[in-house]
Amino acid sequence: MSDETRQSVRVELGPRSYDILIGPGLLASAGAEIAARLPKARLLIVADERVDDLHGEALRAALSKAEIPHATMRVPSGEPTKSFPHFEAVVDRILEERLERGDAVVAFGGGVVGDLTGFAAGVARRGMGFVQVPTSLLAQVDSSVGGKTGINSPRGKNLVGVFHQPALVLADTDVLETLSPREFAAGYAEVVKYGLIDRPDFFHWLEAKRAAIFAGGAERAEAIAASCRAKAEVVAGDEREDGDRALLNLGHTFGHALESAARYDAERLVHGEAVSIGMALAHRFSVRQGLCPGQDAERAVAHLRASGLPTRIQEIPGTPFTLTELMGKIAQDKKVVRGALTFILTRGIGQAFVARDVDPAEIGRFLEAELGA
Amino acid sequence: MSDETRQSVRVELGPRSYDILIGPGLLASAGAEIAARLPKARLLIVADERVDDLHGEALRAALSKAEIPHATMRVPSGEPTKSFPHFEAVVDRILEERLERGDAVVAFGGGVVGDLTGFAAGVARRGMGFVQVPTSLLAQVDSSVGGKTGINSPRGKNLVGVFHQPALVLADTDVLETLSPREFAAGYAEVVKYGLIDRPDFFHWLEAKRAAIFAGGAERAEAIAASCRAKAEVVAGDEREDGDRALLNLGHTFGHALESAARYDAERLVHGEAVSIGMALAHRFSVRQGLCPGQDAERAVAHLRASGLPTRIQEIPGTPFTLTELMGKIAQDKKVVRGALTFILTRGIGQAFVARDVDPAEIGRFLEAELGA
Repeated sequence: MSDETRQSVRVELGPRSYDILIGPGLLASAGAEIAARLPKARLLIVADERVDDLHGEALRAALSKAEIPHATMRVPSGEPTKSFPHFEAVVDRILEERLERGDAVVAFGGGVVGDLTGFAAGVARRGMGFVQVPTSLLAQVDSSVGGKTGINSPRGKNLVGVFHQPALVLADTDVLETLSPREFAAGYAEVVKYGLIDRPDFFHWLEAKRAAIFAGGAERAEAIAASCRAKAEVVAGDEREDGDRALLNLGHTFGHALESAARYDAERLVHGEAVSIGMALAHRFSVRQGLCPGQDAERAVAHLRASGLPTRIQEIPGTPFTLTELMGKIAQDKKVVRGALTFILTRGIGQAFVARDVDPAEIGRFLEAELGA
Repeated sequence: MSDETRQSVRVELGPRSYDILIGPGLLASAGAEIAARLPKARLLIVADERVDDLHGEALRAALSKAEIPHATMRVPSGEPTKSFPHFEAVVDRILEERLERGDAVVAFGGGVVGDLTGFAAGVARRGMGFVQVPTSLLAQVDSSVGGKTGINSPRGKNLVGVFHQPALVLADTDVLETLSPREFAAGYAEVVKYGLIDRPDFFHWLEAKRAAIFAGGAERAEAIAASCRAKAEVVAGDEREDGDRALLNLGHTFGHALESAARYDAERLVHGEAVSIGMALAHRFSVRQGLCPGQDAERAVAHLRASGLPTRIQEIPGTPFTLTELMGKIAQDKKVVRGALTFILTRGIGQAFVARDVDPAEIGRFLEAELGA
């Protein structure tokens, strides 16, 4: 609970700059931290119902102690909540609570709740105050940083949304203790991603510290802070994803296609696992294209496997995917520009780059081999 | 059809700057103008079905001539179209057409279609290209300038939306010939508004030229261009409505309450009429508060009346409104900040200002007198 283990990352976006606070015991400080940044705000907490059962009272007690008026709206856990009906319901509740522009909506849960709530906060009254209290490792290191919000469409994941920056992110590392090992590993895939994009030293540090990070402790908070810092730097340079921000999609074009083919069924595949397989595919495809040494791809894949993550399409349980199915999903991915496929490929550990003219036929042949392997 | 009568207004918003072209025959030039700004874009036209019946073929012929691929989605005329179900349908159609970020959605109709389509374009893939082809006077002088988009909620008008700037606005003044006199007058209320806010000379010019403007001709295009220029200047100084942009709400806090109380029933009241009554109320309230000379208010009201516009609440047909009803609507208006009411009041013709601490009790007493008058 000591402040020494707390870390703070500043996301520099001019008038939309904000702090990410990371460390143990932050839920108990939520009232003070929010009051310092949003004086007199009233809050609507949009909470994942599972998270609310476990940690809702702690958050509400902290807000009450700081005399911040608040109401809570619970939404179901799981990806289907990122949909038009829930979006409309959250927007309506914000308006029903008569929140005004200086008030704020608090996303309390994982990436699903953060994305849904941020989108609703971004459009209610054309933009409300917004606070993220991410409770999964994935949300702490990825979805709560950068202002991308949105919901899924039957036509694809995250196809509908806005850029809406939070006023504050509170990442309490204590709440990660209630994650399942599978959820923790899935979030860790995004941590590894920052190393694989452009931080080889961070990747090597992760290789050395993996056990300590999974056990919890100072290394865990450090890994989260380093991940947030890595993402914050990219976001600050490209808030609206017109350029380098695309690097953050390492593993995501393949990953989204797999998630979509699995119909967002969390029993089969969660986002972090899809990204893990996607990153493994991006590395192996880069090797096949003669871009990346085989040993670098093997090293990346080995670390993911050692972390308990899947790295092959066949590891996804249930009916095997067909090539046609996957290629169709890839073509609908939002990173398609005028028919050419954009992928994040790599020249080695920490040497990812944006490849804008990837030949769909090459991808097809590669996936055919992967599916038959 | 000559270029001499064409006017162009530049809206200066840095990387989001764009042109508003105003004049006769612009539908026929739509292909060339769009191709010049959005090379290789594919288009989805979202068209008011009534407008589409009258002018759709002219627009599509121009696009075909310029070899721009396009599809059309028709939506019903009228305010109920600014709703969640239509919003979801337009977003879905954009995704179904597989439009990519460099493509564009074209709003073809009045303010309803412009607001709905702009919002959908603003969230599909977190922001698509967007072109406005406003076909009502109201849309040409107001809603198509400034990037405010959105839909209504059962809890109030325009409570849900985003700021999303178009790449181009094409205001063809020929299409105004198909407006009913009532629709034209309603749009003219917003023209008068720019004079009443801070352009006394423009107001005097309107007094002198009213007949010519209503008859159509060069004065009409000039009045539209002057209105767009007035709004563009305000928007450029305050894109996200944090400050002076609030002046554009002259007449709108009262007006929105009236529209809401009339349940957006266009038989009873259309937006421009509500704004006309709202501006008259704002002037009379300003007189009552000792802020504005009575003769200035009378002059403003006289011009609105001479233009065929209503200026009193009792002119709205149907069941009379109650004070409680109107005060409830005003309290839910989006310009409420922490309980105090914000109104645009005035010190005389062209001397409007933002009053942030208006006492709800004063408004109540004023409206009670107006309702009983």
